[in-house]
Amino acid sequence: MSNDNKSNASSRLSALNSQMPELSPSQLLHSYRNRSKVDRQGLYETFYGPKWEFRNKVYDIICNNSEKFSAPYIDEHDRERTRYAAFKELHFIQKSLNMGYAEYQKDPHAFSMTSNAVYSWSPAICVKYGVHFSLYGKTLMNLGTEKHLPYIYRMMKLEDIGSFGLTEMGHGSNVRGIKTTAIYDPQSNEFIINTPEEVDMKFWIGATAQLANMTVCWAQLYVEGKCHGVHAFLVPIRNKDTHRVMPGITVGDCGPKNGLDGIDNGFMIFHNVRIPYDNLLDKFSQIENGKFKTWIESDDKRFGFQMASLSGGRVQVACNSNQNSIIAVAIAGRYSTIRKQFGAPGKPEQPIIEYPLTQYRIIPNVATAIVLQLSTITLSILWDENQKHLLDVKNTLINELHAISSAIKAISTWTAQRIITESRQILGGHGFSTFNRFGQLYNDNDVNVTWEGDNNVLLQQTGKFLLDSAKKLMKGKKLPFKCTSYISLDPAEGQQSELNSNEDFFNQGKLLKALQWRVNLLLQKTGLKMQEYMQVSKNGWDAFNNAQPFYSVELAKAFGDTWSAEQAIETISKVQNPENKRVLSDFVTLYLLETINKDIGNFRFGGYINCQQYEQIRSSILKLCNKLKDEFIAVLDALAPPDFILQAPFGASDGDIYNRYIGLIYSAKSTFKRPDWWKEVHKAHKKYHFEIDA
Amino acid sequence: MSNDNKSNASSRLSALNSQMPELSPSQLLHSYRNRSKVDRQGLYETFYGPKWEFRNKVYDIICNNSEKFSAPYIDEHDRERTRYAAFKELHFIQKSLNMGYAEYQKDPHAFSMTSNAVYSWSPAICVKYGVHFSLYGKTLMNLGTEKHLPYIYRMMKLEDIGSFGLTEMGHGSNVRGIKTTAIYDPQSNEFIINTPEEVDMKFWIGATAQLANMTVCWAQLYVEGKCHGVHAFLVPIRNKDTHRVMPGITVGDCGPKNGLDGIDNGFMIFHNVRIPYDNLLDKFSQIENGKFKTWIESDDKRFGFQMASLSGGRVQVACNSNQNSIIAVAIAGRYSTIRKQFGAPGKPEQPIIEYPLTQYRIIPNVATAIVLQLSTITLSILWDENQKHLLDVKNTLINELHAISSAIKAISTWTAQRIITESRQILGGHGFSTFNRFGQLYNDNDVNVTWEGDNNVLLQQTGKFLLDSAKKLMKGKKLPFKCTSYISLDPAEGQQSELNSNEDFFNQGKLLKALQWRVNLLLQKTGLKMQEYMQVSKNGWDAFNNAQPFYSVELAKAFGDTWSAEQAIETISKVQNPENKRVLSDFVTLYLLETINKDIGNFRFGGYINCQQYEQIRSSILKLCNKLKDEFIAVLDALAPPDFILQAPFGASDGDIYNRYIGLIYSAKSTFKRPDWWKEVHKAHKKYHFEIDA
Ligand SMILES: Cc1cc2nc3c(=O)[nH]c(=O)nc-3n(C[C@H](O)[C@H](O)[C@H](O)COP(=O)(O)OP(=O)(O)OC[C@H]3O[C@@H](n4cnc5c(N)ncnc54)[C@H](O)[C@@H]3O)c2cc1C
Ligand SMILES: Cc1cc2nc3c(=O)[nH]c(=O)nc-3n(C[C@H](O)[C@H](O)[C@H](O)COP(=O)(O)OP(=O)(O)OC[C@H]3O[C@@H](n4cnc5c(N)ncnc54)[C@H](O)[C@@H]3O)c2cc1C
Repeated sequence: MSNDNKSNASSRLSALNSQMPELSPSQLLHSYRNRSKVDRQGLYETFYGPKWEFRNKVYDIICNNSEKFSAPYIDEHDRERTRYAAFKELHFIQKSLNMGYAEYQKDPHAFSMTSNAVYSWSPAICVKYGVHFSLYGKTLMNLGTEKHLPYIYRMMKLEDIGSFGLTEMGHGSNVRGIKTTAIYDPQSNEFIINTPEEVDMKFWIGATAQLANMTVCWAQLYVEGKCHGVHAFLVPIRNKDTHRVMPGITVGDCGPKNGLDGIDNGFMIFHNVRIPYDNLLDKFSQIENGKFKTWIESDDKRFGFQMASLSGGRVQVACNSNQNSIIAVAIAGRYSTIRKQFGAPGKPEQPIIEYPLTQYRIIPNVATAIVLQLSTITLSILWDENQKHLLDVKNTLINELHAISSAIKAISTWTAQRIITESRQILGGHGFSTFNRFGQLYNDNDVNVTWEGDNNVLLQQTGKFLLDSAKKLMKGKKLPFKCTSYISLDPAEGQQSELNSNEDFFNQGKLLKALQWRVNLLLQKTGLKMQEYMQVSKNGWDAFNNAQPFYSVELAKAFGDTWSAEQAIETISKVQNPENKRVLSDFVTLYLLETINKDIGNFRFGGYINCQQYEQIRSSILKLCNKLKDEFIAVLDALAPPDFILQAPFGASDGDIYNRYIGLIYSAKSTFKRPDWWKEVHKAHKKYHFEIDA
Repeated sequence: MSNDNKSNASSRLSALNSQMPELSPSQLLHSYRNRSKVDRQGLYETFYGPKWEFRNKVYDIICNNSEKFSAPYIDEHDRERTRYAAFKELHFIQKSLNMGYAEYQKDPHAFSMTSNAVYSWSPAICVKYGVHFSLYGKTLMNLGTEKHLPYIYRMMKLEDIGSFGLTEMGHGSNVRGIKTTAIYDPQSNEFIINTPEEVDMKFWIGATAQLANMTVCWAQLYVEGKCHGVHAFLVPIRNKDTHRVMPGITVGDCGPKNGLDGIDNGFMIFHNVRIPYDNLLDKFSQIENGKFKTWIESDDKRFGFQMASLSGGRVQVACNSNQNSIIAVAIAGRYSTIRKQFGAPGKPEQPIIEYPLTQYRIIPNVATAIVLQLSTITLSILWDENQKHLLDVKNTLINELHAISSAIKAISTWTAQRIITESRQILGGHGFSTFNRFGQLYNDNDVNVTWEGDNNVLLQQTGKFLLDSAKKLMKGKKLPFKCTSYISLDPAEGQQSELNSNEDFFNQGKLLKALQWRVNLLLQKTGLKMQEYMQVSKNGWDAFNNAQPFYSVELAKAFGDTWSAEQAIETISKVQNPENKRVLSDFVTLYLLETINKDIGNFRFGGYINCQQYEQIRSSILKLCNKLKDEFIAVLDALAPPDFILQAPFGASDGDIYNRYIGLIYSAKSTFKRPDWWKEVHKAHKKYHFEIDA
């Protein structure tokens, strides 16, 4: 190339570039950030509640010791190394936190907060925590008695590592149908544990394939030939000196999974495994003189109490999934202010957030993540405060919390699937890069919809709670629950919304009323459906199942949406800072409007919302989206974890996204490598004998 | 254990098992299969069209040489080995098919059919095919001239391996905004290719990180200092002897991805790379005596024609994503007849398909997969028949196909995301096992919503086509398109559906009319919105963008739904076998009803569908679901690929699912392995110093 040509070429290039006076990526992000006047720390405390310092504590441990932590979303490890890393990091965090049994008894919510913070770094570590401390540990604490204290101490110190063996290959949701047997042998005062058929093996049991030396094994208890239902037994599964599996037990790995590579899910097969009598967790049932004894006569009730120890996990899952939503929408949101694509004819390209379509794809998701954050944190606090009453038969709050957490868990986990998917697409092709976290985020989140109660099964339970409540009302009883305060037997059909003036569409009271009305509508419809089916089939089981699609399941979701909105509104009413209050309030209004929009079929029922109102709901949504695009970056700063935790280069809070991305790509292990089999590339075609006859 | 005790225990167990007289998993699946009287081969030919034999050909090659094929969803490989396997399998299939350029010219649809069949085995291999033959190859054929024939021959024989370098890190959807430059140097009669800034590097280019020695590089052509827009240039990127990257070019790997590990997506940076004049693909533009020349004056039009070569990929993606839907729903459907969970009080557990909720979660998805199969295959045939007219300026069918394929691609790819997600959940926890394919299926499918045109951008183009059509109608012109035959300027508001009697709700004519009405409604609403915005902003660009959410984008989707239904109805009208006709027809009716149900907000507009009709639509859906649960297994047999291709043990057509699953788990490489770092497991806790003070 002649020198003339070269300088011509480069001057043309610089002319090309100067056509569009451009802000750098960082400047762009900051320009959106600076449009808002919210107080970030204030928002943070609103979002993460009274124990927010514990969140910072975890983040400090990880960020200040970054050399000890291997970014689970960025580093390329195989399964074995991922698990080892998770194991070591778990121990490091636990050691640094230095919180023991006493602290736990005093302040369970601090534990929930730390666990949720760990989740945003690495679901695998958090689940390792959860399996050991919550599932294994809490079962010990809730169902064991004095004599099991040594196990609790060892658990707390990670001297024992425990797993929770409930699910079998053949049985998950129908827990009472599990097949593993524990037969009491009066001669030796032992239990004999057996897996009847291969398909009855314990399956999916976390921390079992590699780690645990103890398990809580759930099995059908047989005494004197009679089955007394599902009970929990402590079974040592590995020798602590050799880490070999105990005789009579087969343990293995469930194999590769869609996500959560860091968790060693395993199966267990028991063949005449004998454990001493004291290994029965005997808070509810004992065997005395060879006879089965219990202080809760009803099998149903006893079963319910035993399972109560599980519900805490459900609350945690709801909180965790919303972290996934937050992370996804934070990455997409920041990116949308930086990424430019197309522009008006003759104008420079514009950031994609300037497209109303992109606003609608992002801002309502921010609103949902905010509302669910406020509702899940409230739920978590309520739950943790009431743990001590878990086994108090008279405490109706437990019923209420069970119904609420079932709905909120389903909503939060499905919402995360949806938000991650949409946010991934906001990044276009770059969302498909592992570095930007979405793939793994989706995969890790996925199981949340299934474990700790499959969503579709959980919603049936919330539906049942609401139907039972309505029945009580019909019998003239007062409901002891706060969450059902608006439930009424007045016919919902024929009522009309109070949305008339333009302002009404931004009136939270009126919008919330619409959500509550929908719960009543669906409750009445579900009740009617069940009656109809009962008349045909005379069969409560059939009627219940037939009323699920379109009715009971929708009812449960509607109830959860409404409860979430109520909590968000209540929390925000206590916010002092006026800017924070105003902005949060706008997001909640957007959530309310979008909730109506997305289920308009039910809201249009009997003309509660008419056509014109529907149109106005939609235009109000777009108005709010447009307004909130000047606030959302600042709000995301308070919602999202710090950059090192977030990991994705395209979510970096400093906006220097392309350089970070390029840096990661250039330094990945085989970026510039010629494949080992390169010689074959241009030899392979010689094997062909096509006739070319063009 | 005393012998007495032992025999007591085992007799109790067998009593327990015999309580429920059970069919084996295989018997259960067969019992559902045998309820239907459809003719499987007939269905197969309906689903896969006139070239169905080519599908079998591919399956035979793979299944009869199974030792040469590594199941991409089951075998655990690292990225490098996955790519090598895909490379070898690609060559093996290509060799076995033995189809050359002549065959391709004669019968392009046969190629589409084989490629779709390969996709169901391994998306990675199929994409390798697509990048090389369709993107690189068809660009050569469509945009090159006589002098480029040697490249075409080498491409056909895989003697060259080619890639398609359009996207840059900074530019994807806005193709015309790419920054790579090709400056014509009259002295040497060469082009000089440059990447101006790092963020302008070619990015995501398939087959580039490891394989290709050639690329089609898209760049802004500069002649005499003036930019003439985007053109395509042939650039050799690797030396075929050493497989080293050419001087002046930097090539690397884009890094780990959410899916499609078998594809080596790479980036390319050009620094003063000189290529001879003849490497311009010069069908539309040439340089003569140093002057730019073109026979299509309009930049817009020329650009449109150049891009036309891309649209074939879009059709292929639509077909491929529907394979993903089919595979997902086949696995979930078969499983649902075998998996038992819960049962009526005192009754044995029942297969989950017997729950109306499960029916509703599966059967409408089967219906959708059927309708999209019939619509995508029709589209594919139409496209392949019309390829030769691609560059015929007068052929209006090309416009039509472009608008249709944009909508259908968006619908099919999003539907697959939804169906895979729901089907995964049908399997409960077992859907989280890699062996059951869902995770990888979702991940591999994911990019389909983004590449070959991002869905949200594509829908804008369909919307624009429809708006333009309406404008033509308003000017009194007749539309030359078949797909818009029902478009009318009569006000949609105020019209009412013809759904009155019970039978009407199963009347396809009347239901289809409802779908067509919705297109008219949304078209009119979108037009109005644009007018409104125009009045405010006087700016067509703003008006267009503002009319996207709720209007133009919904319009485009509604149009795609309708076109799909039309194709399905037309295809089925030609089916001879009365059982096949009846059953397929029921599925299409279900699709029509569910399409209305899912977008009820629009259908309730102006009371086109009233409350009572809405309720009846829902009850009709549940009725059809219940009826079709006796047909769907047989239908899935015809839709789904053979077991070896399907891979997932839980989708096995013989129903022996648990044994296959257990077999895979037991034989996976590290199932029974003690972790290498086992000694640390019980040492780590010694590092703690908790105070136990309970
Ligand atoms: C990664 C992972 C880790 C896990 N960790 C543990 C662990 O540590 N310990 C442990 O004990 N378990 C664990 N589990 C198991 C988990 O709790 C179960 O997978 C879950 O309870 C669902 O049970 P299932 O998989 O058997 O699904 P099933 O109960 O068989 O459900 C299958 C499908 O049937 C539907 N269905 C079921 N019943 C009904 C009904 N009545 N009406 C309508 N539809 C119905 C469900 O919605 C679902 O779609 C884990 C699972 C996974 C995947
Ligand atoms: C695995 C993989 C393989 C690929 N292979 C190839 C290949 O071989 N060759 C090749 O050339 N390319 C390839 N691509 C690139 C692919 O074609 C692009 O990713 C795609 O065109 C989208 O462009 P983008 O990623 O730049 O997203 P962008 O165009 O930046 O879009 C980002 C977001 O902005 C939104 N948006 C953009 N414009 C508008 C608008 N006007 N209005 C509203 N919203 C808008 C989009 O909907 C999207 O959500 C590949 C990509 C991947 C991930």
